[in-house]
Amino acid sequence: MSNPFFKNFGPFKIEEILNALKISFTPDITDANIYDIKDLQNATRKDLTFFHSKKYKDLANQTNASFCITTNNLKNELPLNCIPLIVDNVLVSTSVVTTKFYPGSLNDNFDKTAIDIKETKYKKTVQFGKNVLIGENVSFGNDCSIGHNSIIEKNVLIGNNCSIGSNTILRNSLVGNNVKILDNCIIGKHGFGFFPNNKYNLRYPHIGVVYIEDNCEIGCGATIDRGSMSNTVIGKNSFLDNQIHIAHNVKIGENAIIAGQVGIAGSSILGKNVKIGGQAGISGHLIIGDNVEIAGGSGVIKDIPSNSKVMGYPAKNLRKFLKDNK
Amino acid sequence: MSNPFFKNFGPFKIEEILNALKISFTPDITDANIYDIKDLQNATRKDLTFFHSKKYKDLANQTNASFCITTNNLKNELPLNCIPLIVDNVLVSTSVVTTKFYPGSLNDNFDKTAIDIKETKYKKTVQFGKNVLIGENVSFGNDCSIGHNSIIEKNVLIGNNCSIGSNTILRNSLVGNNVKILDNCIIGKHGFGFFPNNKYNLRYPHIGVVYIEDNCEIGCGATIDRGSMSNTVIGKNSFLDNQIHIAHNVKIGENAIIAGQVGIAGSSILGKNVKIGGQAGISGHLIIGDNVEIAGGSGVIKDIPSNSKVMGYPAKNLRKFLKDNK
Amino acid sequence: MSNPFFKNFGPFKIEEILNALKISFTPDITDANIYDIKDLQNATRKDLTFFHSKKYKDLANQTNASFCITTNNLKNELPLNCIPLIVDNVLVSTSVVTTKFYPGSLNDNFDKTAIDIKETKYKKTVQFGKNVLIGENVSFGNDCSIGHNSIIEKNVLIGNNCSIGSNTILRNSLVGNNVKILDNCIIGKHGFGFFPNNKYNLRYPHIGVVYIEDNCEIGCGATIDRGSMSNTVIGKNSFLDNQIHIAHNVKIGENAIIAGQVGIAGSSILGKNVKIGGQAGISGHLIIGDNVEIAGGSGVIKDIPSNSKVMGYPAKNLRKFLKDNK
Repeated sequence: MSNPFFKNFGPFKIEEILNALKISFTPDITDANIYDIKDLQNATRKDLTFFHSKKYKDLANQTNASFCITTNNLKNELPLNCIPLIVDNVLVSTSVVTTKFYPGSLNDNFDKTAIDIKETKYKKTVQFGKNVLIGENVSFGNDCSIGHNSIIEKNVLIGNNCSIGSNTILRNSLVGNNVKILDNCIIGKHGFGFFPNNKYNLRYPHIGVVYIEDNCEIGCGATIDRGSMSNTVIGKNSFLDNQIHIAHNVKIGENAIIAGQVGIAGSSILGKNVKIGGQAGISGHLIIGDNVEIAGGSGVIKDIPSNSKVMGYPAKNLRKFLKDNK
Repeated sequence: MSNPFFKNFGPFKIEEILNALKISFTPDITDANIYDIKDLQNATRKDLTFFHSKKYKDLANQTNASFCITTNNLKNELPLNCIPLIVDNVLVSTSVVTTKFYPGSLNDNFDKTAIDIKETKYKKTVQFGKNVLIGENVSFGNDCSIGHNSIIEKNVLIGNNCSIGSNTILRNSLVGNNVKILDNCIIGKHGFGFFPNNKYNLRYPHIGVVYIEDNCEIGCGATIDRGSMSNTVIGKNSFLDNQIHIAHNVKIGENAIIAGQVGIAGSSILGKNVKIGGQAGISGHLIIGDNVEIAGGSGVIKDIPSNSKVMGYPAKNLRKFLKDNK
Repeated sequence: MSNPFFKNFGPFKIEEILNALKISFTPDITDANIYDIKDLQNATRKDLTFFHSKKYKDLANQTNASFCITTNNLKNELPLNCIPLIVDNVLVSTSVVTTKFYPGSLNDNFDKTAIDIKETKYKKTVQFGKNVLIGENVSFGNDCSIGHNSIIEKNVLIGNNCSIGSNTILRNSLVGNNVKILDNCIIGKHGFGFFPNNKYNLRYPHIGVVYIEDNCEIGCGATIDRGSMSNTVIGKNSFLDNQIHIAHNVKIGENAIIAGQVGIAGSSILGKNVKIGGQAGISGHLIIGDNVEIAGGSGVIKDIPSNSKVMGYPAKNLRKFLKDNK
């Protein structure tokens, strides 16, 4: 994925990474520099990758990475050029290393860089209310407005003709043109991703962003979390009603219409022209096709093929649901 | 409906309206002045009306309007005094004309008229927190208080003995006496009403208000949208818990008790003494009678007669639901 | 229960209490001082108690209270040392007397004592954003931060290494160490507790607090209400996602993982290691055991034994639900 915002603190010597992972094994080249952590497909000879499930073995066979965090069971799938770093829990270790490269992606404390918009160059080009704050690495196109008490925290690029409401907070987000974000939204905070542990849950870093494409409208009180290893995307010309929750890594296609209080769990992918009624929920890691209509109140727990209408909990064919519930 | 707030930019010559609708047909009286757009029943000889569904034909027969936006199929239902303006999509055209009369009702960008309460006459009569903003055409009765960071945007009339919490935003709202609105609410913004279009959805104007009657309490994080062509009403002595969403045009009777996270979709009408459990949802355009009890988590998708208790999704008789689900 | 925050305005002469309850009956000792109102078990000889349901008769038999608000039907369960005060509605009368002792617990208007953090001693020890307000009786441990526009209203004790987001409001809360509370939360407001009345609902006082134990994370937009006669508790190392509503008196055990938009109604008690999927709801006054998993979208309306996995509305055994809904 592209990572426009989080500073890469690498390169690190492989020895430093081994120390961070508490691995005592010493590979031949201890002074190799590792420049980034990437997935199996995108990693180059200069990078580290990770491999945690057999279903990715074809990608593992082909990886160009020089090192790979993996398990004893999986290590033999790697090519000769890739030195396995054996750990107990690949995802926890990947999280540790990602945090080392991108420490700024782990925690979301308030943005200390934010200053009054009146002290920035945008005081001349943006219409703004009282008490508006702007963080580092923020930019606006033409004809934008920001309501009272809103905070554009660091790492936000906003296009032309956008309107941000009052009491809204953005960070780590790309916003297209002609986008409206209403009041009281929180957009771009880290997702609800962590490794449970009975003493102290271990958060994993979120190096993705929220990308809101052109012509969208986001209703009051929305929470849209940024992605962990990929981005959260709201497709162009999508309209979201009030009090909607979009979890990390979700991708919504263009022309979506999503009614109030809907929630979409992490990493689900929706096609184009999807309509979702109020209070419906979609579980994580699902694929919802194009032109799908989901009735209000439904609970979707499996993939939905394109051009379907579903209703119920668990959601099934709309006609069948209505017939079964006459 | 009454429209206390939005400025009517009429009258317009009928010719201007025809141009806006891109109608080439020229009626005899091209210099007639049109003063307002109203529904079939309320339009006078000076007004334009609209007629989009056969179910309103009895009202159409009787309308006093001089002009009516309608379709070729419906035009013959109109009386002789009413000249039909034939369009493809009545509601889209009505939206265009309503926007022409009431341009201020279309968009809800932040209120640029809002100033610090300390610069208003209310600094002496209202108790207020830090950073409170007051827009144009706002008034308060006696013994009111407003919490920190709250914004009373333009067009809000508040009665006696009302308490507004912190971080709350109101606009286009009438608030009775002895009303409490808690923190983080957004009240009076436009509803989720628009005509979908695959390139750029077309918003329709919302010329209604939110009317919160005497003795109500609105919990934290509520979103209550103002009406489009009618008002959104919360009946007297109704209590709403936290995180509730009330869509545009909804009317709730007196003495309602509505638990947390309930959502009510657009234009539904609830009678008196209705009780709704947490997370229940009510679809749009329904009639819920008096003394109805809706169990928590229910999804109501059809009208409910008075004195019923319902549960389930779709909601049905409570006893039947509990028996079926033993 | 402990009551660290609300000022007790007692003692009152029993005569004053009888007047408040409009009881004409005069006990022998009219000049007795009553120091507090407590439940049957905790009341001492100096206190008043209340007894409204036969299921508490064993506790009633043993109470040490000198006076007890109760009904004619129940009065004979009380020991000889305890003088019954006969009323029509025990809970309403208890509410009246509790309000007399703790008037500050009834209403939650904005905190007028809150001042800019820069005017407090915490300007040196806490990291803070713009426009942060601090009320009376607030304290912080070491290494804490508070985001922009947040308000720590009166009666909040925060431990070490805590991070409060932006636009968040706390009051009447105890927060442990290493706790993160994200943006837009409202924590410690009174619950949705009142006696319905067709003219003017009667609120009852909330003398409890919210207690958030060590290592918790509370997501954006949470509402967590303080308890009425007991506390609302979030157990240590519990993580809550965005837009969650926790009603008054709820107690959540340690290591809970609660996904977005979940709602838990008043007085329910959850064990340890509970996992709850998105949008699930739990009715009030339930007992949920340890290690329970509740699938997203479920509606729980009865107690759930430890080590169960449930799904559906009403929630039942997960396997059975999935089998029934194939």
